[in-house]
Amino acid sequence: MPTLDTPYVFVDLDLMEANLARLQTYLDQHGLANRPHIKTHKIPALARRQVALGAVGITCQKLGEVEVMAEAGLTDIFLPYNLVGAAKLDRLSQLLKAVSLSLTTDSAVVARGLSSAAQQAGRELTILVECDMGARRCGVQSPQEAADLARVIARLPGLRFGGLMTYPNRPELDDFVGATRALLGGELPIERVSGGGSACMWEAHTHRALTEHRAGMYLFGDRSLMTAGAVPLEHCAFGVRTTVVSRPTRERGVLDAGSKVLSSDTLGLEGFGYIREYPDARITGLSEEHGHVDFTACPRRPEIGEIVTVIPNHCCPVVNLADELVGLRHQAVDTVWAVTARGRVR
Amino acid sequence: MPTLDTPYVFVDLDLMEANLARLQTYLDQHGLANRPHIKTHKIPALARRQVALGAVGITCQKLGEVEVMAEAGLTDIFLPYNLVGAAKLDRLSQLLKAVSLSLTTDSAVVARGLSSAAQQAGRELTILVECDMGARRCGVQSPQEAADLARVIARLPGLRFGGLMTYPNRPELDDFVGATRALLGGELPIERVSGGGSACMWEAHTHRALTEHRAGMYLFGDRSLMTAGAVPLEHCAFGVRTTVVSRPTRERGVLDAGSKVLSSDTLGLEGFGYIREYPDARITGLSEEHGHVDFTACPRRPEIGEIVTVIPNHCCPVVNLADELVGLRHQAVDTVWAVTARGRVR
Repeated sequence: MPTLDTPYVFVDLDLMEANLARLQTYLDQHGLANRPHIKTHKIPALARRQVALGAVGITCQKLGEVEVMAEAGLTDIFLPYNLVGAAKLDRLSQLLKAVSLSLTTDSAVVARGLSSAAQQAGRELTILVECDMGARRCGVQSPQEAADLARVIARLPGLRFGGLMTYPNRPELDDFVGATRALLGGELPIERVSGGGSACMWEAHTHRALTEHRAGMYLFGDRSLMTAGAVPLEHCAFGVRTTVVSRPTRERGVLDAGSKVLSSDTLGLEGFGYIREYPDARITGLSEEHGHVDFTACPRRPEIGEIVTVIPNHCCPVVNLADELVGLRHQAVDTVWAVTARGRVR
Repeated sequence: MPTLDTPYVFVDLDLMEANLARLQTYLDQHGLANRPHIKTHKIPALARRQVALGAVGITCQKLGEVEVMAEAGLTDIFLPYNLVGAAKLDRLSQLLKAVSLSLTTDSAVVARGLSSAAQQAGRELTILVECDMGARRCGVQSPQEAADLARVIARLPGLRFGGLMTYPNRPELDDFVGATRALLGGELPIERVSGGGSACMWEAHTHRALTEHRAGMYLFGDRSLMTAGAVPLEHCAFGVRTTVVSRPTRERGVLDAGSKVLSSDTLGLEGFGYIREYPDARITGLSEEHGHVDFTACPRRPEIGEIVTVIPNHCCPVVNLADELVGLRHQAVDTVWAVTARGRVR
């Protein structure tokens, strides 16, 4: 088995399989559709595995990801993104001929573009209304706006109103959906209510209006999910192997993984990762090629050349920076996947 | 000329040429060698352009970048990195047969590895001592440690002590170098003193001990260099073209470029970029595929579908996230470069 050089990104396959099964079982038990977000792994083989285990389909975040997954044989894909511009709408109509695709919008102008693409393809396109329930990302701001946009969608040729979408699931969810349903009366049924998030995944069943859940990070785990209590350390399947390349002082050490591997995305946490072998160490900063570590609180401290395992704060951007993901089984290399949908920003 | 779809990363070629010439002229005037850092652009054609304009050679930050640049014909390469581990030392000795390479170290253990690689290649390898003058990254902590390590390097077979290296240039530079020189006496000359940084580049001549300067970002410019006063807005050659895809409220807008394009690296600045067309707007947050903008302070606000130009905080990680860099001349596409050394983390 080849020894891999550091830094490299890996997943423990047995732990990942257990994570995949755990969420699928939970959502099955509660009658919720599982529609995992592939932006976490960006690997067709893992998307197919999720569907094989019971997912109703997958979620992508960019059209380029949809193209990769459609090419790889995935057939039911949700793209909760406001698609804007002629180039993307042309690509969308090509895709519509091959796969079952649903999208979202939060505006009439985007809905009109989607209608053109659907007509160009000669296919009906299901559109959900994206709802901002307090996260201040995209999304209509109120049940009234949601109902108004649902009616716009339903009237546009080629489009079918499919329901409501939000991210992440928040306490407001049931009230928002209920109020929108009341405004629409019997006129337009809200068939699908799609929620999302890995940090909140084990509370999905508490939102009675929800019909499907989109989680991405659940199959890997990371420091943010450990901190949120959603994936404990012993279930965390994901990490970066990195070498200590400098020990400038007795307290400080420097890793050969910096922001080009671990990403600068802190997800609001203090520090830039958790070191399995040195749980009391703090990754205090990243430069592009170096991780800066304070080992002050550690009873034992590493030598130059020692390889350590960092669990990054946020697994998704780490995978997006990597060309390959190494699948380990019992610490040995089992599989090396190309991160096929990496960097698909359009 | 094809219209490019958003988001895409571009450089204005005329502005870039002016930036390249401006620093080269400044360093020439002050008798300082220009050894630009290619981690900013990661493109062999731009490295060759820098050398054609007068650079003595280039700087890379990972061995994988050296391999790309050596393959492309660059012959004088500085790798200021502590190279650790058998796999990398093997690759180093292969490279030594083809190109003139100098490296740094801050420890005897790393120096011994470099000595083995040099002997394996049958070539003499020039090693500089990396000095921490207060930035708390890698580097020896004092002139005494620098002098001790210089002597270790000079005694190791295959190695030649080449001088001192630091980043970024700090006020302590001349004193640190002077004290090290005094400790070494006539025993070992300090031939090269290599400093670096784009934010501090116009003060390079004030460090009398410096013999060469490594700047990376100077050819592009970014919001950090605008803020530091090193590259004013009118010289900034770099940007990301991105579409407004949502206007959830009168004040807020959402761009189709998020952390997968602009990177989460704030370089300590508030906000995530500067919008040329809306200078009073604030990019308040990034999710992976969305940039979240507050247009409250803007007298005019964009419609959905409008394309805007973001100058990111830090150009280097933005290029590392991009597969291509578009070269524009008079707003039209002149060149599309593959970012050949993107993602070379080993």
